[in-house]
Amino acid sequence: MNKELTIGLFGFGCVGQGLYDVLQNSVLFKSTIKKIGIKNPHKKRSLQANIFTTNKWEILHDPAIDTIVELIDDVEEAYDIVTYALSHGKNVVTANKKLVAEHLDEFIKLQQQYGTSLLYEASCCGGIPVIRTLEEYYDNEPLKELSGIFNGSSNFILTKVFKERNSYSSALKEAQELGFAETNPILDVGGYDPKYKLIILTLHAFGVILKPEQVLNYGIQHLSDIEIKIYNSTGLNVKLSPQAKLEPNGSLSAFVIPKFINTKHPLYHVNFEFNAVHVNGFFSDGQLFTGKGAGGHPTGSAVLSDISALSYRYSYEYKKHQTGVEYELNNRIEKDIYFNLSETLWNFLFPGKVGYEINNRITGIIRVSIEWLIRNTETLNNDRAFIAEVLDEDKNQLLQILEETSLENYVLT
Amino acid sequence: MNKELTIGLFGFGCVGQGLYDVLQNSVLFKSTIKKIGIKNPHKKRSLQANIFTTNKWEILHDPAIDTIVELIDDVEEAYDIVTYALSHGKNVVTANKKLVAEHLDEFIKLQQQYGTSLLYEASCCGGIPVIRTLEEYYDNEPLKELSGIFNGSSNFILTKVFKERNSYSSALKEAQELGFAETNPILDVGGYDPKYKLIILTLHAFGVILKPEQVLNYGIQHLSDIEIKIYNSTGLNVKLSPQAKLEPNGSLSAFVIPKFINTKHPLYHVNFEFNAVHVNGFFSDGQLFTGKGAGGHPTGSAVLSDISALSYRYSYEYKKHQTGVEYELNNRIEKDIYFNLSETLWNFLFPGKVGYEINNRITGIIRVSIEWLIRNTETLNNDRAFIAEVLDEDKNQLLQILEETSLENYVLT
Repeated sequence: MNKELTIGLFGFGCVGQGLYDVLQNSVLFKSTIKKIGIKNPHKKRSLQANIFTTNKWEILHDPAIDTIVELIDDVEEAYDIVTYALSHGKNVVTANKKLVAEHLDEFIKLQQQYGTSLLYEASCCGGIPVIRTLEEYYDNEPLKELSGIFNGSSNFILTKVFKERNSYSSALKEAQELGFAETNPILDVGGYDPKYKLIILTLHAFGVILKPEQVLNYGIQHLSDIEIKIYNSTGLNVKLSPQAKLEPNGSLSAFVIPKFINTKHPLYHVNFEFNAVHVNGFFSDGQLFTGKGAGGHPTGSAVLSDISALSYRYSYEYKKHQTGVEYELNNRIEKDIYFNLSETLWNFLFPGKVGYEINNRITGIIRVSIEWLIRNTETLNNDRAFIAEVLDEDKNQLLQILEETSLENYVLT
Repeated sequence: MNKELTIGLFGFGCVGQGLYDVLQNSVLFKSTIKKIGIKNPHKKRSLQANIFTTNKWEILHDPAIDTIVELIDDVEEAYDIVTYALSHGKNVVTANKKLVAEHLDEFIKLQQQYGTSLLYEASCCGGIPVIRTLEEYYDNEPLKELSGIFNGSSNFILTKVFKERNSYSSALKEAQELGFAETNPILDVGGYDPKYKLIILTLHAFGVILKPEQVLNYGIQHLSDIEIKIYNSTGLNVKLSPQAKLEPNGSLSAFVIPKFINTKHPLYHVNFEFNAVHVNGFFSDGQLFTGKGAGGHPTGSAVLSDISALSYRYSYEYKKHQTGVEYELNNRIEKDIYFNLSETLWNFLFPGKVGYEINNRITGIIRVSIEWLIRNTETLNNDRAFIAEVLDEDKNQLLQILEETSLENYVLT
């Protein structure tokens, strides 16, 4: 039967308080939070002082505490807490995607060695039960593709800019005020946060452990009026859409870049702070899961679900990883990419290639490899270049609008 | 560790063949289908003859077969197979929603008494993993509402009629040709099929067992040109949307009727044969799951996932049902309903109430209880009446368009 858990909670920010609310209000679930580890003892708290401690060992050495819930910002401190707990008989729930994505290999081994369990449903897409579904429902089905919108903050900004004509900076400010954004906005809008999530989901969907430095992430922070013009003329919307895909040669592609999508695309209507996961199986066909990706309650609810799973001794099986089928990460794959560059950079990167001058920038669609994009990410960011993947079905329409919009067809020969 | 299963399959139609394909192609999963029970030995089959049998006892009495997969049309025969198997040590997977919805109470008791497991993920919404998610992910979270689009056939017809201007009858014919529709179309378009699914999901979402005869189902078969006119003028679309909801007084409402929805509604963009489940939790907020609801492969894939779950001895816990919290079904709740009636029936049912004459029918919005609708379902169907729930936010707009469209304001005093 289910075990009642005694929980040590680290962190009492937005998600920690959300979790506390959820636990207090659950009629079905009887586990209790015994102690809460915090950094700043002087901050005003909504609970009695004696439940808090600033000494992590008071929690980690307490034999009555069998479950650690880690919800702190500091990744290094979180790493110490999680590894200590897992190797000393305590199960762990965390929402920290960077921590998990960077240490997947080690965390799997620690769980095997010490027979403990680490669950992290809340690290990916808030309340959407994606990891559990991949582990339990798609465990025997080979997948073709996993993609989606994994970052509520940048999706909120894109929606505000495209659908409500806000400026990028005011949209970012609003996302921060609403609590959707990371303290450092580049983690969201630069595509780091969705990359960590992609890495975690790729393990559960394809059995492959990717390293963050192997995976391209290019963000939305250089979005310009040109892309708004494109949207107004064509309806093509921009989404920051991470994807992992089995390629025809049996390798795996995985990357995070903005993408132009048309009204028929399954992600087109996923707006504001909503997240989405699109799973395409060999047999089950396309499935789309959408839900709020940010905020204390949705994430708290995902953490609760993990705690509940620990109460019946659940642990991830990593079945697709254990089978030994290994897909190689393929960054040599080529994609049609829309570029919006300074004239100087265009001439440097693409001498002789046809581009279209709009608003003193050169735009065009060029086929490049993911590898090439990784090599040139810094150069492109320094140029405030906006780039986006272009799907086959949208390519002609996009080229036509670039041509019409440009004052003159800018041809370098 | 996982157990290899030996499966006896009943039925080799669309889903049975889909399952066979999925199993044959699964590299990860080693279970085998030993025998397939069929009704007609003369039909041409794609497999060798010796795997088939027309004698069900050859399967049910075979001690080597530990798992029964039941995919036949005949509900009474299916009932005999499932109850015999469950009470003789065999676990069962079924996709038959009518069977499950009508015998939930008995099936729970059989499982408890004999320690066997009955799984039926494929009975609800094809490949969308909704039952498992309700059981495993929302097990400790109280839900406020569960709704969606549970019938791919009627959703396909509605999409064809509203978005592609097809006639109702040609859309129905196409749905049948594509294999989306039940042999008897009234099961789909009359709302019976989605009602069975609603009953099954209500057990897992709220812990309540409803009887089919207690739950209102009104279908889309009387859709008329008037509703198309309304769509053309207002964008209000019709969906056949079952819903179960905790009411403020702690009771539960549950019914299946068409509903007008506007472009902001989460189900608005769920079109064609797609199904959707919208779950609203007290903490997790709205989550939408969409995927193909019909066809051999998506359903076969859901059956496979259940078979796989049996291989690690999974069974539903029915946690919310076991807690003893009982919500009473509340059919006294009142809703604003759009009616499209003959003048005779309008005068009989709503004497003195304001209605609008359009195309020789009387239309209007009247507040009635679900109970009232159940009592009058036969009368309304005999009148070929189209009815649909109207949401608060759309009421004024709808009334205005009825008024404008009617040749004269038809007032009976």
